[in-house]
Amino acid sequence: MKSDIDRLMQELNLDAFIVAGGEEFNAVRYYLTNGAHITHGTVFKVRGKDALLVCSGMELEEAQKSGLRVATTAELGFHEVLKDADGNAQKATALFWAQVLEKEGLSEGRVGLYGTWQVNLTIALYDMLFEETDQYEYVAETTPTLFDKAMLTKDADEIERLKSVAERTNQVMQEAWDYIAGLKPDGDYLLNDDGEKVTIGDIKMLVRRELMARGLEDTGMIFAQGRDAGFPHSRGEADMPLQIGKAIVFDLFPREMGGGYHHDMTRTWCIGYAPREVQAVYDTVMEAFDISVETYGLNKPTHLMQEAVLDYFESKGHPTGRTDPRAMEGYVHSLGHGVGINIHERPSISHTRRDDIFEVGNAVTIEPGLYYPERGMGVRVEDFFIIGDNGELISITPFRKDLVIPIEGVSQK
Amino acid sequence: MKSDIDRLMQELNLDAFIVAGGEEFNAVRYYLTNGAHITHGTVFKVRGKDALLVCSGMELEEAQKSGLRVATTAELGFHEVLKDADGNAQKATALFWAQVLEKEGLSEGRVGLYGTWQVNLTIALYDMLFEETDQYEYVAETTPTLFDKAMLTKDADEIERLKSVAERTNQVMQEAWDYIAGLKPDGDYLLNDDGEKVTIGDIKMLVRRELMARGLEDTGMIFAQGRDAGFPHSRGEADMPLQIGKAIVFDLFPREMGGGYHHDMTRTWCIGYAPREVQAVYDTVMEAFDISVETYGLNKPTHLMQEAVLDYFESKGHPTGRTDPRAMEGYVHSLGHGVGINIHERPSISHTRRDDIFEVGNAVTIEPGLYYPERGMGVRVEDFFIIGDNGELISITPFRKDLVIPIEGVSQK
Repeated sequence: MKSDIDRLMQELNLDAFIVAGGEEFNAVRYYLTNGAHITHGTVFKVRGKDALLVCSGMELEEAQKSGLRVATTAELGFHEVLKDADGNAQKATALFWAQVLEKEGLSEGRVGLYGTWQVNLTIALYDMLFEETDQYEYVAETTPTLFDKAMLTKDADEIERLKSVAERTNQVMQEAWDYIAGLKPDGDYLLNDDGEKVTIGDIKMLVRRELMARGLEDTGMIFAQGRDAGFPHSRGEADMPLQIGKAIVFDLFPREMGGGYHHDMTRTWCIGYAPREVQAVYDTVMEAFDISVETYGLNKPTHLMQEAVLDYFESKGHPTGRTDPRAMEGYVHSLGHGVGINIHERPSISHTRRDDIFEVGNAVTIEPGLYYPERGMGVRVEDFFIIGDNGELISITPFRKDLVIPIEGVSQK
Repeated sequence: MKSDIDRLMQELNLDAFIVAGGEEFNAVRYYLTNGAHITHGTVFKVRGKDALLVCSGMELEEAQKSGLRVATTAELGFHEVLKDADGNAQKATALFWAQVLEKEGLSEGRVGLYGTWQVNLTIALYDMLFEETDQYEYVAETTPTLFDKAMLTKDADEIERLKSVAERTNQVMQEAWDYIAGLKPDGDYLLNDDGEKVTIGDIKMLVRRELMARGLEDTGMIFAQGRDAGFPHSRGEADMPLQIGKAIVFDLFPREMGGGYHHDMTRTWCIGYAPREVQAVYDTVMEAFDISVETYGLNKPTHLMQEAVLDYFESKGHPTGRTDPRAMEGYVHSLGHGVGINIHERPSISHTRRDDIFEVGNAVTIEPGLYYPERGMGVRVEDFFIIGDNGELISITPFRKDLVIPIEGVSQK
């Protein structure tokens, strides 16, 4: 969590870090600035000191919402440096960063670089940092970084926000269920009050509206039916009408409006009735879900949970990403991942990442699935869990796990 | 425009480029992949050949919506490379990229790197590219890049999308106007049908709903009143009730749902009546707006337009960013910017960027403003223009430029 940052800097032997970024959503900057809505802004932190947010004067008012110390580029002398650098923006930025570090009390040492930025600008600036400010050694960490490690555990404020987003997301899924459950069947399709076939686009619009009414925003939900559901990341076709008896994978992972903490949950639904084949695959996935939860243990390596699921699916004859990394059918993804400001964080529950363990403060999904696009189906079930103060695995996705949404006038075939 | 890419590559002496990226919104990748919703995906393009999109098998279905050639990391041999690289992801990526370039027919040459990615991962990968694949020279362009130049002019499809977003955004601004115009005054405040004071948060919610109903999403609108309006990038406080007679800066810059083309427009409103001081500043800003449009000429350097506005504001005694780059009052930003997939693109209309000219196909804002936070006010007016085939400057922001939203029962003081 955030309070680990100084300790993690010490472990990494970092004297300071700089978080750069432009207009893109920048998870590390969001984390450090408490979500202040700044387009351009750079965070400087020298170990043991509070972080400093540097922005343009235009963004001062928003920057102050970060709760950090704030200074403008103008008052720290960027314009003079730019002149000295003959207008070369990369050179000026390199010299300016060194000037800020110096003012913050660091005249040499190891400086970690983080944030999200354009690839080309990052490299051009890195070259310039190397050339112009060799009093510092710049460190480019790979995964898991300082921030991956800090974000691995959530503090009490973050847990509260995650729980609040969870509650609202579960409400929205209920709204979608209730809407579908109230539709009128017409052959293979479902009609709304105006007698029109209801489409996936209609459901997505309803979901977006309900999210918004609760201060959340969609970040690309999956509502994929039939063959599309057989591709884990297919989002679903807006124009496709809902069909009775087809498996629908509904993966909802909204976040707080304007960027912030996410929820992540998936249900598989069959409207009206479930074909026997879908029900069988669903039962297998639910068994894998239960095995996952049973395999959980505090301080246990996460890959053991994935391996328990791989063992189970393979014992049932399903292809997996372990038997064939190229597999496009069967169980083709990892079992889960941390969630926070990023939709994918550590810990990973994967057989290819073997260094994560379950810790108090983790916020993590468990989401087994089976995919058979050529058989026109896919199934995934996902809850979001928090590991509580006593090491208990607590689902914050209470939504029902029924496969079938009953429709009046439709019965099991 | 996109059809310029091969020519621009030639001018830059680039034999190929690679567009990298992770889960962040990645404008260059969006541009090349026609907005396909892929989380991890890399675009490779050798000059003279069609681009290739490489993604994981999970994202194949979505990737195919790009219209590009698509291949999966698995079929191109990433897993084998990862094994050879002892699981070092950066080394494996560097070797894999070289392998893809080789398969695409390029065994040596200059390769531009673009996209949006984490700063640390970019640098770590860059180091590895340098060490492991020195048959290629990697090029990190600074602004304006190949894509800044390509995006500088929009093709017919892009213009159609921009016009459609413009029309919908103007409709939403009208909805906000109409809603406010129908409120009941109560002292300095305005009441809704339930007799509650209407807040900025209420207006923002209405606007988000109306955007969504039209397939658009907010990207952080500004609705800032009184002193807040005096800070160009202050977003406005959700809890603040609307007040009669205060200047409100309403800057609306939504985009197509899920990422895509933007509109960008600003109006300044006073509800009920305009204080004389606000009216005077508004008239000055409108005069600057008219001067901007009159100064326009095809193939003319854009900075001349900004300078005409600076001359005018300074002649009226307003501080500007030219007289003092640290200025926090008066005219403190540039006059305009290109808009497309990014909210800020080239051309810039600024006195500090002197190399842009107005060209056919530009899509650009003109947005003079004056800011006096200590006097509790700010004013900005912004239209979005396209430069037509015959060089004409065409506003696609027809929305009225009235300062005052009349309220029944409130008259000019």
